[in-house]
Amino acid sequence: MSKNLTSRAEDYSKWYNELVVKADLAENSAVRGCMVIKPYGFAIWEKMQAELDRMFKATGHQNAYFPLFVPKSLFEAEEKNAEGFAKECAVVTHYRLQNDPDNPGKLRVDPEAKLEEELVVRPTSEAIIWSTYKNWIQSYRDLPILINQWANVVRWEMRTRLFLRTAEFLWQEGHTAHATKEEALDETIQMNNIYAEFVENFMAIPVIKGVKSESERFAGAVETYCIEALMQDGKALQAGTSHFLGQNFAKAFDVKFTNKEGKQDFVWATSWGVSTRLIGALIMTHSDDKGLVLPPNLAPIQVVIVPIYKGEEELNQISEVANKLVADLQKLNISVKFDNRDTHRPGAKFAQYELQGVPLRIAIGPKDLANNTVELARRDTLSKSVESIDNITQLIPDILVDIQNSLFNRAETFRDQHITEVENFETFKSVLENKGGFISAFWDGNVDTEQRIKELTKATIRCIPNQEEVVTGVCIFSGKPAKYRVLFAKAY
Amino acid sequence: MSKNLTSRAEDYSKWYNELVVKADLAENSAVRGCMVIKPYGFAIWEKMQAELDRMFKATGHQNAYFPLFVPKSLFEAEEKNAEGFAKECAVVTHYRLQNDPDNPGKLRVDPEAKLEEELVVRPTSEAIIWSTYKNWIQSYRDLPILINQWANVVRWEMRTRLFLRTAEFLWQEGHTAHATKEEALDETIQMNNIYAEFVENFMAIPVIKGVKSESERFAGAVETYCIEALMQDGKALQAGTSHFLGQNFAKAFDVKFTNKEGKQDFVWATSWGVSTRLIGALIMTHSDDKGLVLPPNLAPIQVVIVPIYKGEEELNQISEVANKLVADLQKLNISVKFDNRDTHRPGAKFAQYELQGVPLRIAIGPKDLANNTVELARRDTLSKSVESIDNITQLIPDILVDIQNSLFNRAETFRDQHITEVENFETFKSVLENKGGFISAFWDGNVDTEQRIKELTKATIRCIPNQEEVVTGVCIFSGKPAKYRVLFAKAY
Ligand SMILES: [Zn+2]
Ligand SMILES: [Zn+2]
Repeated sequence: MSKNLTSRAEDYSKWYNELVVKADLAENSAVRGCMVIKPYGFAIWEKMQAELDRMFKATGHQNAYFPLFVPKSLFEAEEKNAEGFAKECAVVTHYRLQNDPDNPGKLRVDPEAKLEEELVVRPTSEAIIWSTYKNWIQSYRDLPILINQWANVVRWEMRTRLFLRTAEFLWQEGHTAHATKEEALDETIQMNNIYAEFVENFMAIPVIKGVKSESERFAGAVETYCIEALMQDGKALQAGTSHFLGQNFAKAFDVKFTNKEGKQDFVWATSWGVSTRLIGALIMTHSDDKGLVLPPNLAPIQVVIVPIYKGEEELNQISEVANKLVADLQKLNISVKFDNRDTHRPGAKFAQYELQGVPLRIAIGPKDLANNTVELARRDTLSKSVESIDNITQLIPDILVDIQNSLFNRAETFRDQHITEVENFETFKSVLENKGGFISAFWDGNVDTEQRIKELTKATIRCIPNQEEVVTGVCIFSGKPAKYRVLFAKAY
Repeated sequence: MSKNLTSRAEDYSKWYNELVVKADLAENSAVRGCMVIKPYGFAIWEKMQAELDRMFKATGHQNAYFPLFVPKSLFEAEEKNAEGFAKECAVVTHYRLQNDPDNPGKLRVDPEAKLEEELVVRPTSEAIIWSTYKNWIQSYRDLPILINQWANVVRWEMRTRLFLRTAEFLWQEGHTAHATKEEALDETIQMNNIYAEFVENFMAIPVIKGVKSESERFAGAVETYCIEALMQDGKALQAGTSHFLGQNFAKAFDVKFTNKEGKQDFVWATSWGVSTRLIGALIMTHSDDKGLVLPPNLAPIQVVIVPIYKGEEELNQISEVANKLVADLQKLNISVKFDNRDTHRPGAKFAQYELQGVPLRIAIGPKDLANNTVELARRDTLSKSVESIDNITQLIPDILVDIQNSLFNRAETFRDQHITEVENFETFKSVLENKGGFISAFWDGNVDTEQRIKELTKATIRCIPNQEEVVTGVCIFSGKPAKYRVLFAKAY
């Protein structure tokens, strides 16, 4: 494993790409735009899944599974949704291959096995799910339906980047059905809050909650709630979205129910999702020029123990201490690895775990044995200390909590320092160019204004943060009365 | 929820289809051959996944994720594998939809967005994974690779049945790479044993271990190990397979490594999988004319408590007892539900949980309150008893273990009674017709013999069981010297 990572200052984008590959998280595959998530990267995703799944179930949701394919006629039923995704759809048109008569040993699509109706590989599942819910819902007694699905989805992308933008990605998508607008809105907001809680407490990434402007809304949604994070290069990243779908899908699929008053009404809907994209956010928020930095709550290996020895006898003595430490830490539910490989030298192991972001490294050498100590190294601060073996098991849980909190605080300080209020478009452009980050500015609420700003600066409205106060001011671009104070940024 | 389930004697196949739908496990979707796995069915799958995943990790495997799509040129590289699956492949040929000029509001495939190379939706992932492993393996130090993936796969089927045979299904597929033939063979057998352990101890389904005959082998495998189960209608069901792939995929994708002696050699491979098909086996092994019967180790709800009351005051009194019981059972890690819905009567609840196979039902009524008792009903035996509330928390864990064991023993007795040794083809046909089950018979090892028997009787060789003794006898069909004693059966 090579240590030579391009620095962030040199080329942030290159740094990211190299880091993902060298830290063994993921790599590009033989399929254009699709990635292979390697075991170390997948272990992070599994930790994320476990926690999110727990949170979903604690709020009354159940998992289910709906088909990968969406018949074209269902896909196009909700017009805005269809329009929004049509350009990114992988389409199955045939169901058989046959021997290619012109190329012995090769296969070709069997022209006789053409589907009567094309199947879209799901870019999102509202259509297939609401065509199913139609049969499940007759009365208010059948509501609410609170279902989540863990699945792969495909959105054909021309320019892809590992985790951040891939043709296929993994995600969860919640799809709920409600008897009232209020209940559906409550659900939408609840799930956005759960995402915020997860991303802040587990991923140690501070987020801003808000709603999207109309043009950034999910195709088919009435309102899109979101959480927005800020990366180290000053670009924003949408970390999760929760959509209030109104009655749009119920109308498209004719899903009515008899309410308590005995009247027919269309069902209210929400959908919400986070994806493997979050791993990209994780990397870009905390990592440094030496490699990945993982918050302990999501690290597949929280503590690694590296023996420093000459000869078998020394290794045996160190192993005795190390194995006891492993057992003690495992009792505390700490994920710990004792790396006693004799094929790699300590220096190479140090470099590997640094690159892979293991939060705490313990080194034990002959001097430590003599002194009853270990050397402790924190990945976040790169600081080292010598600790008594007798205290170490007690110390470690606290240090892990401290690392988790420090990472969040560091990211929050950076984020807060990169929210700049501006009052005019000249400052807007200059801040965007020279400082980056979120720009808080008055906006007239007009789609054209938003569009013009985007064309001129590449900045988009990341969100309209939850705000209580009445807005008084003028739009930085049009000079018309402002409707909102919003956050602009260049974004991933 | 209707209680009117077709009986098994009346129409076994109809009974199965009705049961799957009425017990809320799964249903057919708008996509031909694809199913919707409903929350209750999916909860069973989640329990299966959790246990299998634990077993895989305990034996050193890690999870990862590989692309859904396989470029045609990679798919066809291992010829036998490609040939075996070519007829069942869903193929993506386009990556975009556009507005249909002839049908306003409708979409059509954009003819300009045709892929240069078609993408096969994975029917299995050997091809995409071995084209990836090629880059991961240089030396024996890179081996073994022990990876598993949880994924959806698509095999286009003309005649589908919920869980048993669907165009899309969920599964896990292990794909390992080894430096030696022996190590790969050990892995293959180990994973077949893990499947047997899981299916017997968790699903309470007895299995026979063995290998497949050449014609029943996985396309591209050198040897397919399998576990075979017997359903109540006397038909066999392949519950899991573990393939020794030899160097076939390494040769197809040119995956070589430098061994310890410094020489180049092709890598040895295994793959192994179980799928949502197992849920079909679970249903058909244990269930009865009243509905599903679930082994406690896989039941999403192990114990349900139903209050029998008139008026709110009675319900409150019962709830007090029930809530304490819920808390006590949860402390023992027992999954328990207190169904206090006031929209359904006790009789309807009883019917629902019977249909859904909840292992233990507790009813509490006013008489019970007076006597300090509850009524306990076992789903497996349909027997009831009145128990003192003071003993109940202590009793239940033992009863759940007893249900788990009883289900296995009942299925094993049935299976053992349905293995018939026959010495000639007349008896073979008569047993197959009148009794069903496995038929143990001598076979000459010839593919043509196997084929003729299949044509005449629809019975196939389910497996060549692990056998130590030397076979002496003649083939029941050809009269030639027998090579093996094998198990024939009609199969799902
Ligand atoms: Zn936002
Ligand atoms: Zn077998």
